[in-house]
Amino acid sequence: MSAARQILALNRFEGGDKAGFEAGLQERLARREATFGAASVLFYEQPIEMVRGHGVHLYDAAGAEYLDMYNNVPSVGHSHPHVVSAIAAQAARLNIHTRYLTRPVEDYATRLLAQFPAPLTNLVMTCTGSESNDLAMRIAKAVTGAGGFIVTRAAYHGNTETVTAISPSSFTAAAAAAHVRLISAPAASGDVAGQFVAELRAAIADLQASGIGFAALVVDSIFSSDGIFADPAGFLQPALDAVHEAGGLFIADEVQPGFGRTGMMWGFARHGLVPDIVTMGKPMGNGFPMGGVVTRPEFLARFCQETGYFNTFGGNPVAAAAGEAVLDVIEEEGLIENAAATGALLQEGLLGLQKEFARIGGVRGAGLFLGLDFCDPDSGAPDQPMASHVINVLRQKFILIGAAGLYGHTLKIRPPLCFRPLHAGWFLERLREVLRAA
Amino acid sequence: MSAARQILALNRFEGGDKAGFEAGLQERLARREATFGAASVLFYEQPIEMVRGHGVHLYDAAGAEYLDMYNNVPSVGHSHPHVVSAIAAQAARLNIHTRYLTRPVEDYATRLLAQFPAPLTNLVMTCTGSESNDLAMRIAKAVTGAGGFIVTRAAYHGNTETVTAISPSSFTAAAAAAHVRLISAPAASGDVAGQFVAELRAAIADLQASGIGFAALVVDSIFSSDGIFADPAGFLQPALDAVHEAGGLFIADEVQPGFGRTGMMWGFARHGLVPDIVTMGKPMGNGFPMGGVVTRPEFLARFCQETGYFNTFGGNPVAAAAGEAVLDVIEEEGLIENAAATGALLQEGLLGLQKEFARIGGVRGAGLFLGLDFCDPDSGAPDQPMASHVINVLRQKFILIGAAGLYGHTLKIRPPLCFRPLHAGWFLERLREVLRAA
Repeated sequence: MSAARQILALNRFEGGDKAGFEAGLQERLARREATFGAASVLFYEQPIEMVRGHGVHLYDAAGAEYLDMYNNVPSVGHSHPHVVSAIAAQAARLNIHTRYLTRPVEDYATRLLAQFPAPLTNLVMTCTGSESNDLAMRIAKAVTGAGGFIVTRAAYHGNTETVTAISPSSFTAAAAAAHVRLISAPAASGDVAGQFVAELRAAIADLQASGIGFAALVVDSIFSSDGIFADPAGFLQPALDAVHEAGGLFIADEVQPGFGRTGMMWGFARHGLVPDIVTMGKPMGNGFPMGGVVTRPEFLARFCQETGYFNTFGGNPVAAAAGEAVLDVIEEEGLIENAAATGALLQEGLLGLQKEFARIGGVRGAGLFLGLDFCDPDSGAPDQPMASHVINVLRQKFILIGAAGLYGHTLKIRPPLCFRPLHAGWFLERLREVLRAA
Repeated sequence: MSAARQILALNRFEGGDKAGFEAGLQERLARREATFGAASVLFYEQPIEMVRGHGVHLYDAAGAEYLDMYNNVPSVGHSHPHVVSAIAAQAARLNIHTRYLTRPVEDYATRLLAQFPAPLTNLVMTCTGSESNDLAMRIAKAVTGAGGFIVTRAAYHGNTETVTAISPSSFTAAAAAAHVRLISAPAASGDVAGQFVAELRAAIADLQASGIGFAALVVDSIFSSDGIFADPAGFLQPALDAVHEAGGLFIADEVQPGFGRTGMMWGFARHGLVPDIVTMGKPMGNGFPMGGVVTRPEFLARFCQETGYFNTFGGNPVAAAAGEAVLDVIEEEGLIENAAATGALLQEGLLGLQKEFARIGGVRGAGLFLGLDFCDPDSGAPDQPMASHVINVLRQKFILIGAAGLYGHTLKIRPPLCFRPLHAGWFLERLREVLRAA
């Protein structure tokens, strides 16, 4: 079983279990299977019907309130009224593509680009993180003339055919395609930078020797699906140097860490580096489907010589209005500062639990993106069943959480950024209850 | 110069022309170039800033009203209040992915699937037509075990790397990749079915002989970027038979003809055939970014064995609400019937103009998707400069229109579906004025 299947299996509802459910739920599940077929995947042993969201909370059909520790798309809070009204107002006024001038799009592009270091001055708006990474890879190939990509072993970068090839967490077969090399996720301790760059250099050399050549390293700088690795800050800098020495590009996939998640605007900023291409998605519009690619003008120009690129929905003024409202809320509500401060408090609480419970093998992360490993207290081996157990018991306690990592044994703690100390306290208490009873 | 560049060049604003513009517009264009770089493409010799849309009209920054004969994304009308309020209400309530149960998504899936013939009972929701075609191609490869695709010579199916390979209208190089075969667009007259299927069979044989094998024929059944070919109804049936004889799949790309455009719900229905996979995009949410793939359960299951597929924004309840509202409006306002009736009236008017003006070489189409060729009256050769002239003069007369076709000489007439006889009359009068003065 590959990493992907392990991670999916953690939360996946399997049809065979449904005999015990009440008739209404059984009927709903049967209808879902009949319409969405084999592509239907639901969270939890007992799936939840959601009807409403607000801030850090989701509400099910029976009115129960869940504390959301998982969803990073509604990053400034579920159904944030400022974002909702921006979408509603712009949708009522104008929704059109970018071949006419529209001020919302120009204003948003200017404001977003001001968040990037100097050489990154061009923006292409897309609809999803997948479209963004698909485009970034093609830009890298056009610029370098090479075809090889390097990613971490449990990486996820999106769902197009091109991007699935660099998303081993979606593989069902064990092997990557010939143009892709997998390297280990960063170590949790020791010489993190040195180990990472050593594997990277070997992979680059291997791609070069193969004749495929080295186009780009693609990293989600918080290593979300690998199990969340943030420290020590700066450890990716030698990787950037190695990439540039080899004539390749560094693609920072900010779909997960971007827009304040780690207590800074961008995940790459934690490493003090300037990527060649930055890709964005999920939190960009707080759920309005939008993504983006930011790069150097000369790289974009090189790509545009090779192919005509147009994205119908990309850069529509409703997306721009949603994106602008997200930036407003991040600033006005101090969400980056909150991610840093509340994230630190939460991490401290989790480290406290680690002293109390031997089966917690590690606590890592930055801002409001934290990972907590469950391991066998004696052998230290990854304990995926324990992660699965905790997720399903927390669901009964009205807390939503998921798992990550190559072995699926890492709790992935990633609440909306309006998560406050009182929510952290509540979560820590419930987690302690679960661990005491386990 | 490839087909793509010819089509783009028709409407593309080239930076060198801007010296004559007023300072405000110059500044806006400079800012756009600085932010969107080489990927920025604007319509018209003199670009337009749009600020508002309603029904079949767009309004520029000076308040001028344009009759929109071009935009098919706002298919039920620009900023339709029913769609806008559905989006606003659902965004205020809940916007989440499909791993929880949500009723809006289940209801929409059931309602949409009821529009398809029996074996097509599974739906995967995506965010764009590009994502839909990317997924459809991978399903076809998984099902057939083959890698080859056949498309028409000026086809456009989307912007991911995989889909760009079957979109020759985006190529800058003349040649298709090894796994892609290009066949001629349908003929405008004569043995349309016979010619089309003969080229198709040759391409299938060529793919099979190459060892790549034949996975699928991908057709936009109104042949939008090829220049709009609709007649005789049914001419694609022999193509379907040839595809199935060869063990391949027929992928109907309904991004252009779908949702009532041709006077029927689906473009493929005009040909009396049942595709193996149907893809949807642009008009599905009237501008809310959404797309979909409909296929047989066993095909989807086969694909899901090979790869994990999840689409974060795909199937969010706001998209479902938008999609549901679009179906409401299509039904309540009788837009399919209107597309058939007003489209027929418009086509009749254009055929009348053809008798009056020798430079009109042909008029074709179905419903509210019509093509009008400009040709040299003596030689019959495609007259692309005339199409470009007409487009830019109509813009001065506050009518928005574009071009299509391998030679870029075909006016692409594709207004929102709430286009009524009075709009047709107005357009025909303005077009006559332009042709008289030309």
